[in-house]
Amino acid sequence: MKINNQHYHTIWIEENIPDIIHIIDQRKLPFIFEIIHLKTAEEVAESIINMAVRGAPLIGVAAAYGMYLSLLNYRGADLRSHILETAWLLKSTRPTAINLEFAIQESIERVIGCRDQSTAIKAALEYATELRDQEIKNSSMIGYAGLPIIRNKYKTLGRTVNILTHCNAGWLACIDWGTALAPIYKAAREGIPVHVWVDETRPRNQGARLTAYELKEEGIPHTVICDNTGGHLMQRGMVDIVIVGSDRTSPEGDVTNKIGTYLKALAAHDNNIPVYAALPSSSIDWQIEDMNKVPIEERDPIEVTSIEGWDGTEISKVELCPVGTKAANYGFDVTPSRLITGLITERGVCLADKSSILSLFPERK
Amino acid sequence: MKINNQHYHTIWIEENIPDIIHIIDQRKLPFIFEIIHLKTAEEVAESIINMAVRGAPLIGVAAAYGMYLSLLNYRGADLRSHILETAWLLKSTRPTAINLEFAIQESIERVIGCRDQSTAIKAALEYATELRDQEIKNSSMIGYAGLPIIRNKYKTLGRTVNILTHCNAGWLACIDWGTALAPIYKAAREGIPVHVWVDETRPRNQGARLTAYELKEEGIPHTVICDNTGGHLMQRGMVDIVIVGSDRTSPEGDVTNKIGTYLKALAAHDNNIPVYAALPSSSIDWQIEDMNKVPIEERDPIEVTSIEGWDGTEISKVELCPVGTKAANYGFDVTPSRLITGLITERGVCLADKSSILSLFPERK
Repeated sequence: MKINNQHYHTIWIEENIPDIIHIIDQRKLPFIFEIIHLKTAEEVAESIINMAVRGAPLIGVAAAYGMYLSLLNYRGADLRSHILETAWLLKSTRPTAINLEFAIQESIERVIGCRDQSTAIKAALEYATELRDQEIKNSSMIGYAGLPIIRNKYKTLGRTVNILTHCNAGWLACIDWGTALAPIYKAAREGIPVHVWVDETRPRNQGARLTAYELKEEGIPHTVICDNTGGHLMQRGMVDIVIVGSDRTSPEGDVTNKIGTYLKALAAHDNNIPVYAALPSSSIDWQIEDMNKVPIEERDPIEVTSIEGWDGTEISKVELCPVGTKAANYGFDVTPSRLITGLITERGVCLADKSSILSLFPERK
Repeated sequence: MKINNQHYHTIWIEENIPDIIHIIDQRKLPFIFEIIHLKTAEEVAESIINMAVRGAPLIGVAAAYGMYLSLLNYRGADLRSHILETAWLLKSTRPTAINLEFAIQESIERVIGCRDQSTAIKAALEYATELRDQEIKNSSMIGYAGLPIIRNKYKTLGRTVNILTHCNAGWLACIDWGTALAPIYKAAREGIPVHVWVDETRPRNQGARLTAYELKEEGIPHTVICDNTGGHLMQRGMVDIVIVGSDRTSPEGDVTNKIGTYLKALAAHDNNIPVYAALPSSSIDWQIEDMNKVPIEERDPIEVTSIEGWDGTEISKVELCPVGTKAANYGFDVTPSRLITGLITERGVCLADKSSILSLFPERK
């Protein structure tokens, strides 16, 4: 998608420079646009931990590139141990999004049996590129799959369709297009009038910072609201559809997503507003049996007791609470499938239940 | 209640200085403790608009003192017009809390028939003092009325009772004790172990700033959370009771309170957690027929797109969104009575329905 009318992806390698991975530093957006150059798996891990890259699909791809860089730079004799150590390093960066685990697992399987280091390097890069291309394609397909939902709503209402989204599940969370925002981008390109209510999404404000930035750069009308506001808007008929992303979806259709998603789904349900979770199948955890066992990331309470913003000159932090205030910072919550109208995947839209999901992914039966 | 171990009210007159009203500047807490001296009704109105004083019971009392100051300072010949003009000025400061309207209406009735200005001044001061004393008493009675709810929960659980509250409905929103926090203060003084989950309450962060400050000064264990977090805590059994305030309650038991209250009530209802609204009867709008007609205050979007905090030296503001981002800033939402377990009033606890409310206030039948 576009920044300053120039097309970008969130992660890429430049031709003839195979030892550097480029990412956009998402900690500094929308105030500063800066590209970071990663040369080691440790740097990739660090960029996932500090959230320079974030978003379930993107951190999966970043981890695959991390595996590649690690093999590229290895100078030792025990390649197998090295691969497993790197995998552990990358996997331990963030606990909730299942994409990370999948990407690392798949990368291991592709490289672990390679006859030598150079073959392993090639296989790791091939996989990272393949996953990256697949996620771009997935996002675009999610966009086309979700488009009829918006188109039909527009046909029924005959006016601008108001869509509420939480956090950032746009192209910045993926490689291109996004998940929750992909159908919105496709709808806008088709000329359907849309307006997006953007939850600011405390504590890290990915909505106010990243979603608003994406939508602005793409010229999509939008209004930022505090996370408290969506329920009131729904009660007053000001929201037509809710679309969110997912960091981990169970085969039963329960959705783990950014903290606060559950509250919006409850309000939508209470007001008969459809709620869709848009996700590539790489976000489905086919093994999980009890979503209450999904590890919910707990981050530094400082993200709650203080906030970063633009002071007119630079990004600076201000304290929000009395000195010494204790805070809790859970990153995700689980929205039960009963509150979800449908899942928008790269293979189409289905109900949030096991048989519907398996009808789209019969190979998982 | 206490600040730095000294007892304060939120609004007072000092002996022998009858022409000055003193308030604590709540825009600067918890970072700076500053007292403002108000000499005119215009200054009172301004302090309500800019939220130096806020909270439904407190702005009612402030307005009553505003009526008094206005009469005290009047030097013209048409007292009746002056009273009505002042009433209009004070009433137009904020639209949602019904206390403001009640206090002004009652003040008018007390002074409008007075035979001369000095009698009117005396009547206005008497009413303001009476309302202030009444609200202190109301808050304390609300505390005692709500105490058994916490005590019984403690007896059942045999461990610390976890209470979630939204916004600031503590003594800073009243004159003393508070509404939602009053039962918590009474419980703590009785030795019942309580812990409060404090919603930060964007956009103005009255939770993170004022509730956390109050609880800290009173030594009550508490944890600040983002407004997104409560649902997850409830799903995981980490909240036992929700207690909030109310800016306007209908005789049917619907509660208009700080934006986001509805979302927490939905989550509590979904997890079988009791939700209480604590309010003096001065917050009941006996006339209202349709809560969807309550005027919901819309404030400056700048409160959403930027935030104030402590930069280490002073209170400063940082921008949170891309330049030019549109935002919406609704101040309140309506929680329907079906989501409310009970109302805690100065006359006791009742169900959130007409007959229960009228059984406590039979004179309103």
